[in-house]
Amino acid sequence: MALLYLINSWSVAEWTEAMRRLAPDLDIRTWPEIGNQADITYSVAWLPPANVLRSLPNLKVIFSLGAGVDAILKDPTLPDDVPIARVNEPDLTMRMTEYVVLQVLMHHRQQRRMDESQRQRRWDSFATHSASAMSVGIMGLGVLGSDAARKLASLGFKVAGWSRSRKSIPGVECFAGPQEFDSFLERTDILVSLLPHTPETTGIINRDLIARLSRKGPFGAPILINAGRGKQQVESDILAALDSGALHAATLDVFETEPLPEASPFWSHPKVTVTPHMAADSDPDTISAYVLRQIRRHQAGEPVENIVDRSRGY
Amino acid sequence: MALLYLINSWSVAEWTEAMRRLAPDLDIRTWPEIGNQADITYSVAWLPPANVLRSLPNLKVIFSLGAGVDAILKDPTLPDDVPIARVNEPDLTMRMTEYVVLQVLMHHRQQRRMDESQRQRRWDSFATHSASAMSVGIMGLGVLGSDAARKLASLGFKVAGWSRSRKSIPGVECFAGPQEFDSFLERTDILVSLLPHTPETTGIINRDLIARLSRKGPFGAPILINAGRGKQQVESDILAALDSGALHAATLDVFETEPLPEASPFWSHPKVTVTPHMAADSDPDTISAYVLRQIRRHQAGEPVENIVDRSRGY
Repeated sequence: MALLYLINSWSVAEWTEAMRRLAPDLDIRTWPEIGNQADITYSVAWLPPANVLRSLPNLKVIFSLGAGVDAILKDPTLPDDVPIARVNEPDLTMRMTEYVVLQVLMHHRQQRRMDESQRQRRWDSFATHSASAMSVGIMGLGVLGSDAARKLASLGFKVAGWSRSRKSIPGVECFAGPQEFDSFLERTDILVSLLPHTPETTGIINRDLIARLSRKGPFGAPILINAGRGKQQVESDILAALDSGALHAATLDVFETEPLPEASPFWSHPKVTVTPHMAADSDPDTISAYVLRQIRRHQAGEPVENIVDRSRGY
Repeated sequence: MALLYLINSWSVAEWTEAMRRLAPDLDIRTWPEIGNQADITYSVAWLPPANVLRSLPNLKVIFSLGAGVDAILKDPTLPDDVPIARVNEPDLTMRMTEYVVLQVLMHHRQQRRMDESQRQRRWDSFATHSASAMSVGIMGLGVLGSDAARKLASLGFKVAGWSRSRKSIPGVECFAGPQEFDSFLERTDILVSLLPHTPETTGIINRDLIARLSRKGPFGAPILINAGRGKQQVESDILAALDSGALHAATLDVFETEPLPEASPFWSHPKVTVTPHMAADSDPDTISAYVLRQIRRHQAGEPVENIVDRSRGY
C-alpha cells in the first residue's frame, strides 16, 4: 500500500510534508520516481501527467485536493474504473463562505467608493440601502453554495440559488434546471458563481447571461462574483459589459488563464477586484487530514465519501 | 401636539420630509421657527442648541436619531425630567453587523494585501489561516454587539464580548466588568468597539489598552475596529502603535473630530481604513417610522421603548 502524489501546480513538498506529519508510517511516493507501480493503492492528484494514473494496476481511489475535480477529469488517459473523491471539508466550506460574504458585503456597502474617498481625503457620507434591498443569486447549491446562501440570508439579503436538481434551503428561494434559469437571473442583483467546471458550465457567464440579470437593484446594474472556475466566464464579454455599464462591478477569483497574465485588463480595471484563486484555499494540514481519514475508511472496508459522479462532473 | 426637529448635523429637511410622507397630519416644526413652545410634545434631537429643549413646557419625549444619545446628553441645559429614547431598530442593528462582519473579514482575509497585489498586477497566492485561528473581541454587548458577535461566531471566528454587566450569548465567551477586562483583551486578536460614549469609555482605546491585546494571533499584532464613538480613541496613541507595530492595522469609522480633518494622518496611513461614520447609518424612512411608532405608543398610553438610563449614558 502506497500513496502517490501527482500534483502539477503546487509545491508537492508542502503536501507530502503535511501528510508525513499526520501519518509518519504511510508509504508516500512522488512522481516521477514512483517505484513499483503495483504498490500504489491511492493517489492524490491535481493536473496529473498523462498515462500515469492508468499505469497503476492496484489503484483504488484518486483524491482531489479541493472541491473541484476538473483538474483530474481533464486527463484524457484517466482510468475509467477508479473512483475519484473530492474534498468536502468544513474548513473549505467555511473559507468559501467567508469569501462570498466578504465580497458581497464589499459591493453592498460600497467599500470601493469609500476607498476612493479615503485616497482623496474626502469625508464622503452617502445614503445607503439595506441588505433586504439587494437580491443575491448563487449559481451552484452544493455544500459550498448552500452554506454561503444561508449565511447571506442571515445577514438580511434576499437570497436565491440555482442548481441542476432542486434544493430546499430555509430562507433561500431555490430555482432549478434550465427552465428556471431566466427567472433566477431576472431577480438577481449580485450573481455569485460557485458552479463546478463541466461541459455545461463552460462559458456560461457570457454576454447573454449578463443581459438577463436584474437592473432593478440599488445600483441599477448587476454585479458579478465568480469563485467557481475561470472557464465558466467569457472574459471579453465581462469586460465589454463593465465598460458599457451592463455590469456595475465584478469580483473575480478565477480566470480563463491562471495565473492571470500581467497584460490582462482586469488588473487595472476600476470596477474589478482580482483575487488569486484563493476563495477557498484550504491549508495542506486540513486537506491532508481529510484525505487520511478517507484512506483509513477505505482500509477499514467503509465507503470513501464524496465520490464524484463522472457523468455530472462533480 | 407637535413634533420639533432639533438637528444640527444633518440636513433637517431629509428628516422632516421622511416623517411627512409617513404622517402627513403630524404637526412638524423645525428650529428656530418653532411657533408656540407649549404645542411641542415630542422632539427629535441631535446636537440640540442650548436652552431650547428646556424651554418647552409640555415636552414628553426626546428622541435620538440613532443608537447613541451622547449628542443629546452633551447639552448642559437638557431638562432633567424628560425621558430620552434611543433608536433600537432591526435595520440599524443589521447595518452595524454588516459593517463589523465586512471589516473583520477584510482583515482576516487580507483584502488590503490582495488590493496591493492587484495594483502591482501580481498573482500573489499566499497561505491563509482559518477563522477559528482568529479571536475577535467585541467591547459592548448591547443589541448591536450581541448581534455582531453571533454572526461572527457563525462564520467560525472565536468570539468573545465584554460588557459592564454579564451577558449570555450562545457560542460567545462573555467577560464582564473592570476585573475581567484584562482577560478579555489578552485573548483578543481583533478588537471591535461598539461601546456607547460615556465618561467611563472616553479615551478607553489608548496606548495601555493596545499593549494588553493579544500578540498570539495570525498576524502577531492585534487589529482595531472602532465603530463606537471617536471620543473613545486616543488617536495619537493609535498612530504611534501602528507605526511601532504594536497594532497590525485599524479600521476607524469614528474620530475625535468629525468630519475627519483633511490633515489627519489616518487618511493616507497604509494600515488604516477610514470610513465616514457610516457603520450603522440607517435611512431616514426607517428611523422616522420607528419614531412614529413610539409617538403612537405614547399617545395610546403605552410606554415608549428604549428609554435611556441617563446615569449609564445608554
